Amino acid sequence: MVEGWLYNLRMFNDFAFVILRDRKGILQCVLGNLVELDKVRPLQMESVLRITGKVVKQQNSESKFELQECLVEILNSVMEVLPVTINKKELNLNLDTLLSHRPLTIRNLQQQAIFKIHGVAQQAYREYMLSQDCTEFFPPTLLTGSSEGGTELFSVDYFGGVAKLSQSAQLYKQICIGAYERVFALAKCFRAEKYATARHLTEATQYEFEMAFVFSIDELLDYLQETIRFMVIKINEKCRAELELLKVKLADVPVKIPRITMREAQEIVFKESKGMQDDRAEPDMSPEGERLIGQWAKREYQFDFVFITHYPKKKRAFYTLPSLVDEVLSESYDCVGGGFEIASGSLRINNYEQLKQSAIDKGIDPVTIEDYLNIFKFGMPPHGGFGMGVERFTQAILGVHNVREVTMFPRDVNRLKP
Amino acid sequence: MVEGWLYNLRMFNDFAFVILRDRKGILQCVLGNLVELDKVRPLQMESVLRITGKVVKQQNSESKFELQECLVEILNSVMEVLPVTINKKELNLNLDTLLSHRPLTIRNLQQQAIFKIHGVAQQAYREYMLSQDCTEFFPPTLLTGSSEGGTELFSVDYFGGVAKLSQSAQLYKQICIGAYERVFALAKCFRAEKYATARHLTEATQYEFEMAFVFSIDELLDYLQETIRFMVIKINEKCRAELELLKVKLADVPVKIPRITMREAQEIVFKESKGMQDDRAEPDMSPEGERLIGQWAKREYQFDFVFITHYPKKKRAFYTLPSLVDEVLSESYDCVGGGFEIASGSLRINNYEQLKQSAIDKGIDPVTIEDYLNIFKFGMPPHGGFGMGVERFTQAILGVHNVREVTMFPRDVNRLKP
Repeated sequence: MVEGWLYNLRMFNDFAFVILRDRKGILQCVLGNLVELDKVRPLQMESVLRITGKVVKQQNSESKFELQECLVEILNSVMEVLPVTINKKELNLNLDTLLSHRPLTIRNLQQQAIFKIHGVAQQAYREYMLSQDCTEFFPPTLLTGSSEGGTELFSVDYFGGVAKLSQSAQLYKQICIGAYERVFALAKCFRAEKYATARHLTEATQYEFEMAFVFSIDELLDYLQETIRFMVIKINEKCRAELELLKVKLADVPVKIPRITMREAQEIVFKESKGMQDDRAEPDMSPEGERLIGQWAKREYQFDFVFITHYPKKKRAFYTLPSLVDEVLSESYDCVGGGFEIASGSLRINNYEQLKQSAIDKGIDPVTIEDYLNIFKFGMPPHGGFGMGVERFTQAILGVHNVREVTMFPRDVNRLKP
Repeated sequence: MVEGWLYNLRMFNDFAFVILRDRKGILQCVLGNLVELDKVRPLQMESVLRITGKVVKQQNSESKFELQECLVEILNSVMEVLPVTINKKELNLNLDTLLSHRPLTIRNLQQQAIFKIHGVAQQAYREYMLSQDCTEFFPPTLLTGSSEGGTELFSVDYFGGVAKLSQSAQLYKQICIGAYERVFALAKCFRAEKYATARHLTEATQYEFEMAFVFSIDELLDYLQETIRFMVIKINEKCRAELELLKVKLADVPVKIPRITMREAQEIVFKESKGMQDDRAEPDMSPEGERLIGQWAKREYQFDFVFITHYPKKKRAFYTLPSLVDEVLSESYDCVGGGFEIASGSLRINNYEQLKQSAIDKGIDPVTIEDYLNIFKFGMPPHGGFGMGVERFTQAILGVHNVREVTMFPRDVNRLKP
């Protein structure tokens, strides 16, 4: 007996092939009885069926088994013509249609595969973090307005007052390393940015990591590199069929993901573009520069992830530790994957006075971040960490153009449904 | 070499015991050098230290090792008198003080233990779900106002319009079973309830589960029971030290958690209270009834979890399947753990017309839940599931009075900080 959805129906004079979809895949069922034929004849795709029959091994076929001499029971029928056809390999819908019909399009096998991989990536992240003696922490989403001095925060009507939606778990992971030394979370973050680009969501998730007693960004990059390696290994191990369905060949993570300074990266970009892209005087990487550095890594290392380090201090958050060798720079890094930034991290300032001054230098009134600053009065070890976009990681791994394609129910300035 | 926080300091004339806390626990370090003694003399608790010394095995001591002939390096010092004393077994602070000083109180070993257990419970949940061929799904937090017809939703200023914060992942898990059959999530949910009781948070997390092709609540309760069993086994296995620290003895889950109807439960409550609590004519369990049924289960089964089934239809959500034997009742259940409701579930209506009528009967205008209803036009199998409070589960397991004690950064009508 199998239960599932009608995936395809091929009617002949005195028999029919009923192709059924369930969570294991698709299965061919052969009907030879006229009563049964009459039952399935009027059915629309996605009708819910229970089919009993004789299991017969198949050779020369995609599937290993088929059901023969089948009896059909209709558990739930489809009431309207499906607004989108979903029983094909590639949907080829425009993104808006794909997302608007998510309750149906998610049933498509390629679409299912995307989120299977997305889930395996997240579970792998948790497993790796736990194996490294990290403790999960649980940051809140609702905050008072001022706690981190952030901009572009969504406001919530909170019993007549105002709460803000969290943009980052930064404060909370720094609190938690004071107890657990090494912490991780999968944290929701919200950004009230009007950008409707291929990379921006108003609601996203972050892989968070923070550890105490770390003294160099190289050590942090070792963690990030091995985290990514573990995730890629698990995806390759557990999602072979899904990757095949999506026609993605996921290369092994190289022994060492290249680590270059931002200035070196800009030089590489300049050469890679044959002089067309010259960001060497710029204080940050450009999107085109990130794309080109990915292209360079893909060619040189067969894997398009790059760690770029030592961004100018003025381009990073106030809590970033300034560089120990060049005061203009900072002990910071990004991970560019798939040609765009997917992760960002740094060593943090752990001295109260230095942190306060750094905030002031950035034009932040220390009073507005008092709660944050105060924790540095009570024994904060040298520490650092990273945040990596959960959706962006999957986007990079699958080589997908738009982050919405790897987000089950994406939210942006134009989309709050379904 | 060890790095950590000064947990205690015992100074003598020509030597000192420095007790250091790190993520592994506490360690005794012996200082015998006068220069080192002068270094540590003025230190406040929670100063961050690096200590190098000779590892010596200990007998007749709580810890197995100590460090001798130590040298001390101060990595970060404490600038103000600690507002709370945290280097003791039990903090004995009132809840408000405990939570307001969370950046410090979380360093207390008992407090650390609570959230270690909380994390292990969640990882165990995910592991069990994955072992049952469930797929993780990713519900959004930001919704349009109307999608589920709920009340008490928080409003978000969304680019001049209004978004609501999700109260439940119900719609999304039902969408997802159409693809994956069995799905789970750890989903944030928000309730704009002014209650400041021991059980209510404005921001909470739910263990979500939903499966297709399920035809009885007994089958759903089997899943819930085995989920709970696996979680309890993992907590007992991985958190022995933490449970000991909290003086919690976590009993094994009985072979079968008792399953009784609501009417039977009310009879038991009546007897258990020697006639003092008579809810037998009431359409729902009372809080006192839940407390008493927990007391009864604890005595009879040595484990205070009870499954209560068949609540009156009028007390459950419109999507709950009416009882097949008594049209006043529904195919619904709660799990009472620790004397209060921690989980709730049911079989769902999967027929479009029946669902629409059920909404109308509850006074819900079908137009306001059109998006939800529409998915039932396209082949929805018989299905059901449950939602279990993540914080409430830990609360029940640890036998704690207030859910805020097991919430790292609780949010309620009066609290948005830290």
